[in-house]
Amino acid sequence: MTDTDHLVSLRRDLHRHPEPAWCEYYTTARIADEVERIGVDDLFLGADAVNEAERMAVPDEATRREWADRARDDGANPDVLDDLGTGPTGAVAVLERGDGPVVGLRVDIDALHITESESDAHCPAAEGFRSEHEGYMHACGHDAHVTFGLGVLERVKASDFEGTFKVFFQPAEERIGGGKAMAKSRHIADVDYLYGVHVGLDHPTGEIVAGLDGFLAVSHFLAEFEGEPAHAGAHPEEGKNTVQAMAAAVQNLYAIPRHADGATRVNAGLVGGGTATNIIPDESHVEGEVRGETTELKDYMRERAERVLESAADMHDVSVDISTEGEAPSATSDQALVDLVEAVAATTSGVDSVLERDALGGSEDATYLMQEVQQHGGLACYLCVGTSHPGGHHTKTFDVEEDTLRIGVDVIAETVRDTFENQP
Amino acid sequence: MTDTDHLVSLRRDLHRHPEPAWCEYYTTARIADEVERIGVDDLFLGADAVNEAERMAVPDEATRREWADRARDDGANPDVLDDLGTGPTGAVAVLERGDGPVVGLRVDIDALHITESESDAHCPAAEGFRSEHEGYMHACGHDAHVTFGLGVLERVKASDFEGTFKVFFQPAEERIGGGKAMAKSRHIADVDYLYGVHVGLDHPTGEIVAGLDGFLAVSHFLAEFEGEPAHAGAHPEEGKNTVQAMAAAVQNLYAIPRHADGATRVNAGLVGGGTATNIIPDESHVEGEVRGETTELKDYMRERAERVLESAADMHDVSVDISTEGEAPSATSDQALVDLVEAVAATTSGVDSVLERDALGGSEDATYLMQEVQQHGGLACYLCVGTSHPGGHHTKTFDVEEDTLRIGVDVIAETVRDTFENQP
Amino acid sequence: MTDTDHLVSLRRDLHRHPEPAWCEYYTTARIADEVERIGVDDLFLGADAVNEAERMAVPDEATRREWADRARDDGANPDVLDDLGTGPTGAVAVLERGDGPVVGLRVDIDALHITESESDAHCPAAEGFRSEHEGYMHACGHDAHVTFGLGVLERVKASDFEGTFKVFFQPAEERIGGGKAMAKSRHIADVDYLYGVHVGLDHPTGEIVAGLDGFLAVSHFLAEFEGEPAHAGAHPEEGKNTVQAMAAAVQNLYAIPRHADGATRVNAGLVGGGTATNIIPDESHVEGEVRGETTELKDYMRERAERVLESAADMHDVSVDISTEGEAPSATSDQALVDLVEAVAATTSGVDSVLERDALGGSEDATYLMQEVQQHGGLACYLCVGTSHPGGHHTKTFDVEEDTLRIGVDVIAETVRDTFENQP
Amino acid sequence: MTDTDHLVSLRRDLHRHPEPAWCEYYTTARIADEVERIGVDDLFLGADAVNEAERMAVPDEATRREWADRARDDGANPDVLDDLGTGPTGAVAVLERGDGPVVGLRVDIDALHITESESDAHCPAAEGFRSEHEGYMHACGHDAHVTFGLGVLERVKASDFEGTFKVFFQPAEERIGGGKAMAKSRHIADVDYLYGVHVGLDHPTGEIVAGLDGFLAVSHFLAEFEGEPAHAGAHPEEGKNTVQAMAAAVQNLYAIPRHADGATRVNAGLVGGGTATNIIPDESHVEGEVRGETTELKDYMRERAERVLESAADMHDVSVDISTEGEAPSATSDQALVDLVEAVAATTSGVDSVLERDALGGSEDATYLMQEVQQHGGLACYLCVGTSHPGGHHTKTFDVEEDTLRIGVDVIAETVRDTFENQP
Repeated sequence: MTDTDHLVSLRRDLHRHPEPAWCEYYTTARIADEVERIGVDDLFLGADAVNEAERMAVPDEATRREWADRARDDGANPDVLDDLGTGPTGAVAVLERGDGPVVGLRVDIDALHITESESDAHCPAAEGFRSEHEGYMHACGHDAHVTFGLGVLERVKASDFEGTFKVFFQPAEERIGGGKAMAKSRHIADVDYLYGVHVGLDHPTGEIVAGLDGFLAVSHFLAEFEGEPAHAGAHPEEGKNTVQAMAAAVQNLYAIPRHADGATRVNAGLVGGGTATNIIPDESHVEGEVRGETTELKDYMRERAERVLESAADMHDVSVDISTEGEAPSATSDQALVDLVEAVAATTSGVDSVLERDALGGSEDATYLMQEVQQHGGLACYLCVGTSHPGGHHTKTFDVEEDTLRIGVDVIAETVRDTFENQP
Repeated sequence: MTDTDHLVSLRRDLHRHPEPAWCEYYTTARIADEVERIGVDDLFLGADAVNEAERMAVPDEATRREWADRARDDGANPDVLDDLGTGPTGAVAVLERGDGPVVGLRVDIDALHITESESDAHCPAAEGFRSEHEGYMHACGHDAHVTFGLGVLERVKASDFEGTFKVFFQPAEERIGGGKAMAKSRHIADVDYLYGVHVGLDHPTGEIVAGLDGFLAVSHFLAEFEGEPAHAGAHPEEGKNTVQAMAAAVQNLYAIPRHADGATRVNAGLVGGGTATNIIPDESHVEGEVRGETTELKDYMRERAERVLESAADMHDVSVDISTEGEAPSATSDQALVDLVEAVAATTSGVDSVLERDALGGSEDATYLMQEVQQHGGLACYLCVGTSHPGGHHTKTFDVEEDTLRIGVDVIAETVRDTFENQP
Repeated sequence: MTDTDHLVSLRRDLHRHPEPAWCEYYTTARIADEVERIGVDDLFLGADAVNEAERMAVPDEATRREWADRARDDGANPDVLDDLGTGPTGAVAVLERGDGPVVGLRVDIDALHITESESDAHCPAAEGFRSEHEGYMHACGHDAHVTFGLGVLERVKASDFEGTFKVFFQPAEERIGGGKAMAKSRHIADVDYLYGVHVGLDHPTGEIVAGLDGFLAVSHFLAEFEGEPAHAGAHPEEGKNTVQAMAAAVQNLYAIPRHADGATRVNAGLVGGGTATNIIPDESHVEGEVRGETTELKDYMRERAERVLESAADMHDVSVDISTEGEAPSATSDQALVDLVEAVAATTSGVDSVLERDALGGSEDATYLMQEVQQHGGLACYLCVGTSHPGGHHTKTFDVEEDTLRIGVDVIAETVRDTFENQP
Repeated sequence: MTDTDHLVSLRRDLHRHPEPAWCEYYTTARIADEVERIGVDDLFLGADAVNEAERMAVPDEATRREWADRARDDGANPDVLDDLGTGPTGAVAVLERGDGPVVGLRVDIDALHITESESDAHCPAAEGFRSEHEGYMHACGHDAHVTFGLGVLERVKASDFEGTFKVFFQPAEERIGGGKAMAKSRHIADVDYLYGVHVGLDHPTGEIVAGLDGFLAVSHFLAEFEGEPAHAGAHPEEGKNTVQAMAAAVQNLYAIPRHADGATRVNAGLVGGGTATNIIPDESHVEGEVRGETTELKDYMRERAERVLESAADMHDVSVDISTEGEAPSATSDQALVDLVEAVAATTSGVDSVLERDALGGSEDATYLMQEVQQHGGLACYLCVGTSHPGGHHTKTFDVEEDTLRIGVDVIAETVRDTFENQP
């Protein structure tokens, strides 16, 4: 039996210690402690949990060290921290019991670079568990996701099942930088059934969406142009102008042809360049993204975007270096699992509304894991556990109703149990 | 002594038969007849006068044949026409007399694609020598230039000199397509002193400019883009859009950096593309030009323009074919010859104003011949013989005062004589 | 009973006399003759059939006169031609019989500017009914549509019904220039049930699509820029450059933001400008189109496109005149009528496959009439009569299998009869 | 007689205390002290020296306060600092002696945002007078200019003259933000002869250029775009995209037509925009400059640039605010004064090379004062006092040879004396 008070207390502790992508040292250590308490057959941490080479959007060593040190100051388990160093974060917990299918649950664990509200109307502020890492906040509910993962692990352990159960605690979702690293780890290859979960998304407490779809595949890129400076008055012809290149690129990025197969997106979200009004600008950059309703459409946009960026550089005789900062494919929830979630939810205490499907309309890198499982013949499903959140996701007043924690654990744990039993 | 009436009658006959670049079959035959009448040591015509491989802006075979046929209909010498076929036009006439320097005079012979005025106020219309080739006109005075060449030839023959005198009757100046072909012929290599001449240029009858300068080097280009069509509603992504490529090129052509070393120019003068509103346009073109105060500046612009055109094509995954349609370098008149012209002009009857130098501010491919002579150690000078022209150059009411013909022949012939004598 | 031979012969005559938008003088006269033969209660022609003021994409007077004269030469009824003059084309035929609903059928009558194949493999060439108007062709099957209209009219006349039946013979669909003029005529206001029909669309002979949807709303525009010329070498700053304006417009037209509500399209299909390489171009134009999955999305694109065109003109200090060359909204087939067509088709001889619905994916201005009917509370449906066409629509080898004529008339006439009877 | 040691010591003190535009509090106080020591008839400081309303490129209050406080910490005269507050800097010193012309000398006093070299090869570092304001440096020699101003003041005071002598200590030349404010003060209106001076400019110690010309008129601008953010995946159409506007502006700024009247320049030197890859960027900016060989050409460029910026904003439905950050006209040195300087320099000890004229090829806002004097009928001249500087101007190793200080004071003071005497 899950202790609801424990779930609440756990989530509040995580909420006080938000950590950005690939810096979730406190969070990973806290997960490790809880998993040890619960008792599992295997626990993989950091470099043993993810494929280190496939990480994206990794901050520099100094930043990672800063967060690892902060975790130590915050009292995280020093043995775990020693183990992690400044390497990858994340964890995979495994329960093995006889012959049977492999069922997985994926939750994400990172937080955002947002300053949390101090208003009394904001529950974490009023009840004393506001972020202690000023400027960072669990503003998307990943603190609840970790809690779901641990609560379900404990419940599944206590249940009757034959097979293997794995919980994937994935780092760096907010930068779409961790999904691939976890999908390309050795832990996903044998998973037969995979569940992902998100809290909220404008669904109230008591509402469950059995299968989310409409994930836009996405790719973040950084294009850095490098040219030659020159005095703009005395020798304009000697410059190699990266701002001209950047401007040509921006104009033509937005003009990539629309595609008959479905929705595409492009944005040059962050641009900059130059050093002084009288110097031909020798450095500029575009940080942007492309999306597609399918992975193919995203790839189409990405390929065209690279062509535009490289040609714009050529046009002004400058170089450009294009790197991928984060990426996620599209994915679809399998009907057999959606049916199962729907059936379970319909009989779960506290659930008063069940939607079969809804569209996300954004991006999420759980899709890497879903795709990996589906490609080797398994089934995947991404469900939503409603929570009446006062502020929108990614705002400073976002919060999770604590009743949701119990409901989520109930629905997911029971769904996992049914999956072992029915093997749909 | 030159017969002024003959000069007038000759120029009027040429005026009635204007021919465009590389189609001067009547004109070349007429020149040949006159040269035969005068009597020279050598006369080279067409392919023997110019370097056929170096021609630029050559119209297609059908067009050339049409003009050759028209020359025959107009009563041009059939022997010369048989000789020329549909090949190059132009002529080089040579007088050789003992040891001495080689002096050359270059005149251009082609007309423009302009419909001549029918107004009574326009002398050629009033006096019955308006263009008989509707839509074409000697609107820049090259009829007078040919007349200068023949008049000077006759006068130099009648004079005392030791050395060689050559008159270069150059085709296709208006398209800057003939200068290089004549400069790269075998006739220019031994020229020690070269004169070029233009009539008018806003200088009145009786005014001589001893040395013109400020020729902008120029290059005409044609860029033809080729892509793939597609239905703009049903499959926009399948098109390879040449109008997008062309637009990106135009924007960036005009944005080629200014140069500290002097004036540059660029123009996308003629553009077009596409087939229907609902088809992704698979063909487009830009016909344009670049210029520079020096040949180096023109080359700078040309190189940058090609880079822009090629990158714009790459950007939209289409191909581009860039061809040179005409070209001319910059050039400067040598002071020693300018001094000589100035001195002669000052004592010529009918000349009441002599300017040492003035700037052309446009382009002219006599510069190819001037450059060729100067590069092998010779001297060159381009003079202007004023004429009070009622309409501007390249307008339908342009005309030449006939007094100018005698003045021009006097000044140039005497200058040539002095050149043989003084060898400056 | 319909005479199939007559349908074939009629369609072949129309095929021999293709006429472009708003020039369908022969076609209109031929329709008038047939309608007279059949006998109706009312026949409205030209200016009485359409709202003259709402025409779009109307060619100039000289062009219309040329086609009217050609119709006379081709033996069209001179009384009808006298009546039409050089005004609007098109016809509305009306059968009235007692009280009952008003049912309408809309067919389009114009041809395309395409040169028809002369290959023996192309039936009209082999069997002697290839286009006699060289350069024009019924390459989209509107000859069959007119035949459907007349065949159905004759069959409905022969049937038992209570109410009013109207056939709308609409001009200028290919330029989306006639739909609005017919929708805004006085004949559409009382229509309760409207059918539209297209032949082919990659559906084979024997296949019927009961309800076509997915019409993209569309708007064709012509933007004409006017600036000031100047010599590109001598005074580049004095020009007002319309090619720069056009290029800026093209780049930014394609870059109009995608819309979350659905598919949008934009194309600068035909562009041109300038007069000579050395003149700053003082005239240019863009002929293009925008589309949207809904009329609102098309309007969004149109509004943004106008903003881009006007700002691009301002940017280069030139003027721009933007005109609408053709337009059509989006529309949806009503389920009640789709059901009716489906039921009829299922029992029609020669029909071996019935699809409930399919997407057009293009544009069609029958939507104006459908929208008009639906807005005043009526129902509308657009069906497709399959035909195994050897070449694609709008290609020179497009053709209609003649069996289709009978099948189409059977399905539509029976559907109309059922509509009167069931009034769904 | 001027004490050379004092000049050196004074310049070294100024060199230790570099201050940026409009923050020259220490410098102004130091000037005031020296002027008091010398003794003058009038001394105007700050708001009494310049026209406060005409200042450009003024940093914010907080920055000015920071530098004023630093000046106090550095031991600047507190009375002067109290007087200046955080208002304008700069000074005008006046000597009046009987009837006679008004002669002026203008020197500039501000430093640059450059970190000075710490190398032993760099004399200020080696000899202990390196900048004490880390990150700021007298890297253009204005410390020498102030020294010239004070040295000349002392020498003129000691000399025999009839008339009025004024020294203008102008702030903010590096940002071309102070010239206009000083030119529009009440002190310039009666000046009959004005001298400006620059040290170095690649001329070695011992060389004097009597008259500098070729100042490019210049205008710095800041364009700030403001639009609307939106989620780039979920609602791209709701954004008003300032990065698209900025890109369109940049492309078209560089494409402003070249001008036949002379050289023009444009540069988008510093650009930036946006907040995140997945947000439509709602803020962007371009900081740039335009230049012209004449003030008219600069105005042409400025007017066109504003048109481009405003139209680009309109095109993407965003607003733009354009401000002038600094400005300077063109100017020419008057021959009569150039002759005078040349004559004096030729006989000055330590001068071994005198050039009559040279071109600056950059910009300088002394031109505002020169223009003001010339427009009311006075004469102006800008001379250069060579110094063998090891690093280029605006580099971290720039330095002035100290012999130059004496030579500069000798040449200028004697020129001023001759001006009073000869009144050219």
